[in-house]
Amino acid sequence: MTSDLSLENPDLVKDGDRVLLYLDPRRTWLVQASIESPQFHTHAGIVELSKIVGHRFGESVLTSLGERITILRPVTLDYIMKSERRTQIVYPKDFSYIAARSGIRNGSKVIECGTGSGALTTYFASLVATEGLVHTFEAREDFYSIAKKNVSKSGLSQFVKFENTNLLDPSVVLRSNSYDLAVLDTGDPWLLLKIAHNALRGSGFVFCICPTTNQLETVVETMKDGLFCDVESVEIMLRQIEARAGKTRPSMRMIGHTCYIASGRKVQQENLDIENVKSS
Amino acid sequence: MTSDLSLENPDLVKDGDRVLLYLDPRRTWLVQASIESPQFHTHAGIVELSKIVGHRFGESVLTSLGERITILRPVTLDYIMKSERRTQIVYPKDFSYIAARSGIRNGSKVIECGTGSGALTTYFASLVATEGLVHTFEAREDFYSIAKKNVSKSGLSQFVKFENTNLLDPSVVLRSNSYDLAVLDTGDPWLLLKIAHNALRGSGFVFCICPTTNQLETVVETMKDGLFCDVESVEIMLRQIEARAGKTRPSMRMIGHTCYIASGRKVQQENLDIENVKSS
Amino acid sequence: MTSDLSLENPDLVKDGDRVLLYLDPRRTWLVQASIESPQFHTHAGIVELSKIVGHRFGESVLTSLGERITILRPVTLDYIMKSERRTQIVYPKDFSYIAARSGIRNGSKVIECGTGSGALTTYFASLVATEGLVHTFEAREDFYSIAKKNVSKSGLSQFVKFENTNLLDPSVVLRSNSYDLAVLDTGDPWLLLKIAHNALRGSGFVFCICPTTNQLETVVETMKDGLFCDVESVEIMLRQIEARAGKTRPSMRMIGHTCYIASGRKVQQENLDIENVKSS
Amino acid sequence: MTSDLSLENPDLVKDGDRVLLYLDPRRTWLVQASIESPQFHTHAGIVELSKIVGHRFGESVLTSLGERITILRPVTLDYIMKSERRTQIVYPKDFSYIAARSGIRNGSKVIECGTGSGALTTYFASLVATEGLVHTFEAREDFYSIAKKNVSKSGLSQFVKFENTNLLDPSVVLRSNSYDLAVLDTGDPWLLLKIAHNALRGSGFVFCICPTTNQLETVVETMKDGLFCDVESVEIMLRQIEARAGKTRPSMRMIGHTCYIASGRKVQQENLDIENVKSS
Repeated sequence: MTSDLSLENPDLVKDGDRVLLYLDPRRTWLVQASIESPQFHTHAGIVELSKIVGHRFGESVLTSLGERITILRPVTLDYIMKSERRTQIVYPKDFSYIAARSGIRNGSKVIECGTGSGALTTYFASLVATEGLVHTFEAREDFYSIAKKNVSKSGLSQFVKFENTNLLDPSVVLRSNSYDLAVLDTGDPWLLLKIAHNALRGSGFVFCICPTTNQLETVVETMKDGLFCDVESVEIMLRQIEARAGKTRPSMRMIGHTCYIASGRKVQQENLDIENVKSS
Repeated sequence: MTSDLSLENPDLVKDGDRVLLYLDPRRTWLVQASIESPQFHTHAGIVELSKIVGHRFGESVLTSLGERITILRPVTLDYIMKSERRTQIVYPKDFSYIAARSGIRNGSKVIECGTGSGALTTYFASLVATEGLVHTFEAREDFYSIAKKNVSKSGLSQFVKFENTNLLDPSVVLRSNSYDLAVLDTGDPWLLLKIAHNALRGSGFVFCICPTTNQLETVVETMKDGLFCDVESVEIMLRQIEARAGKTRPSMRMIGHTCYIASGRKVQQENLDIENVKSS
Repeated sequence: MTSDLSLENPDLVKDGDRVLLYLDPRRTWLVQASIESPQFHTHAGIVELSKIVGHRFGESVLTSLGERITILRPVTLDYIMKSERRTQIVYPKDFSYIAARSGIRNGSKVIECGTGSGALTTYFASLVATEGLVHTFEAREDFYSIAKKNVSKSGLSQFVKFENTNLLDPSVVLRSNSYDLAVLDTGDPWLLLKIAHNALRGSGFVFCICPTTNQLETVVETMKDGLFCDVESVEIMLRQIEARAGKTRPSMRMIGHTCYIASGRKVQQENLDIENVKSS
Repeated sequence: MTSDLSLENPDLVKDGDRVLLYLDPRRTWLVQASIESPQFHTHAGIVELSKIVGHRFGESVLTSLGERITILRPVTLDYIMKSERRTQIVYPKDFSYIAARSGIRNGSKVIECGTGSGALTTYFASLVATEGLVHTFEAREDFYSIAKKNVSKSGLSQFVKFENTNLLDPSVVLRSNSYDLAVLDTGDPWLLLKIAHNALRGSGFVFCICPTTNQLETVVETMKDGLFCDVESVEIMLRQIEARAGKTRPSMRMIGHTCYIASGRKVQQENLDIENVKSS
């Protein structure tokens, strides 16, 4: 097994590849495999990272203590779950629903505020590649820097435009009628609805991530003020199930709440000849 | 507003475009706008479909009864929710989670069995486009035909390869080590795990959609037999929230259960030099 | 089998007894068995109510169409679920939790406002009997009359004191420091907290039933103003499970929300020598 | 404030009374107040237990560090939550539902197997007092002893008959047709269904507490074999809500699962003249 071979076989770990080492569901490590890598120390023994190069993804290696570790190809979610965080990230159950409801895909243009740790940014960048863009705003410099690093590690930087500024800042100029989706994840998303509305294409989606019922109520009421239609709010709960022969049961541990998600679709108000509309 | 203009402006409804007419959350219609379209009759009055051409997406028109209807650009999920069904579809909360966990995106190769009504097929086709493929198997001829029609309406047929056959049929030959994700949505998914394992690339994901705890238990136990690692099972619950000024509350209506979702990642068993492995 | 025997055997249906006829979980009827009863017509055939007298509870009879119907002894919840309703009742999952958390039992004194359809009233009357009392207030005359009838049918009237008045009415005089539990089920329970506080014994429980998050927030904030301690709020969800050999699964039908429940325990403010208390 | 007064006023803490000291929701202590009590040390300072005697329930005292602690009258649930445990207890959300569904109250006769830590035993004893009985079986000597102690602390021993034996033991003789409710909380409750059926009065309730779906399925299938009707299964989820002005949200911490609850009502099989019954 040489790195020459690996160039021809995408299933071989190449020099410099990031790999996810899997011991068990709670013990996984995202590392870089390199013929020059140092040893990697775990409680389950030492892994020779240099020897991983040339293995096929999905194969296993033994640690110095004889524990079996499987070499996995990291997918976007692995990068996200292993990323550096200073903020509460949006959870996969939540950002995946936003993606499906809004229909973003290769070529979609997304605006996001704030970037936070870049979890949603990373996932959405993976979906809009290769022809779309995630345009993301983060006012705090420390979050901005970390998110940039996180997205970079996942190899998706070219599909993200980072801005270290407040979307409310008057200096920010966004192309109007240009985005397919706006995701607002700030403490007061209702303040950004007009900006999002202007940036969105007609019928484009806005999603607001609201930890509290108060934020949800305010943002939904504001959305219903004529800027957006098809306004809906959901809460998504995920429970692990421990499936085992003869003793299957839901997990006792569960995250009780992450956020509510409010969404709407942009109503174009120009050219609207409805003076005589019935009040709905 | 002429159709000439609309060719240059993607935000204008063009002759032949499918549009989603939105009256309120429970009353939406997916129709084709055409200068030759007939009138469209609803309980809220008549909509002149021919006059929709040239409007901007997000604009509203009035019905003959003066009700305001907004013209929305359908996204993939709208096509799915309006598709013809003979089977229980996989729900957005579930297929979106599968997409996020497995990391599929432009270029990914997915194998699906069975196609059912094509809901998951459609969404995954939208994500793997333009360079990937969803290869889907459905033994029942009637489901196969409907799913094909449903995917076609959403304009994604070129990213789906349909087969009207049982994946277990010995005549089916799948390229091994080629797919990033296998989704098994049949009554006895454990019977397909070896076929899925062979088709998947090393470390690729299998997902099994299990309405019952018995299916979940059997398939998880079979997955753990050495073919897959990182095996986990989840249940996702979605609740609508009725957010209104001063009286926000969860909806009393809720779907209590759709399915459990079990997943694992392919372990490559060849070249595995672990005779002396500790039993884990 | 004669009614003479039944006097000596509490397991025999006596003349005049109410019985619950059980065909299947969705088809049950609460009727009065009497040797003079007319025939009882159901979709599953005719039941001769007169012949039920003298049967043992738990035995079955056949309808004229040969369907088997089991004779059940109604328990309090059966009376509640079969009672006449003009209001949304408090659900068993919710009122049973209130009962357990507050510890009411034989001898407890409960104040309730409003009575509504009397569901909670009935259950709590069954628990405080034979030495306690549920003192319940209902401003609306129609609800008051129905609730009275409902409680009467369940044979618990002697443990309930009904008042057809608004608890806020200045003419209402409640003994102070006398009740173990106050249950507030009105649109604006915070208005009643001082009255409830005064009526409760020291350390007694108040429970507020809040359909909306707004009510919950207001009442909890008011409770925390020094009148109550150990303030907590919960939401209880109940899901039916369809357990069947080889195909066990949660029910697809589920009630997504009934109410939030807020509770606290009365702090006695008199004689409180804590001028120099640290702010908590 | 003297103990003479307290004899006449049930709201005064008497010498020897158990009291629940409340600092905040996570810091409460169940102690005995006595004029001879030693000091009670907490992280929030020292409490002079001897000085609590003569205070009114609901009043507060200050610790040596000036923290305010409220003196609460323990209710049954407080005893349960503070009891010594060697087993997983049945949770209040679950045992309260069993109580409400089965309708037990003063005078009811309950059979329980096994006793475990006595949580359900304690609550049900409080409900059946003063004329009923909880007859409880526990095979393990250590659990039996702890449960006895726990029930004794709550002052309810006279309403419980403890047996340190296996209900399956042939030496156990139960009066037939005598109990209103049987609660089975063992690993294989289906083995006890015939015994429970025989002990129950006609139409009496059996409840089985099942942590796993497998237990649930087996016990429900066995119940449906003709011994019981009105068989149903539920799962109850409880979520804390953090209600605060302007930032109300469900708690992020949640217990994802405790148990499933299966129930049925005894069908009397004797005297059943239904040879020609339609198969249902």
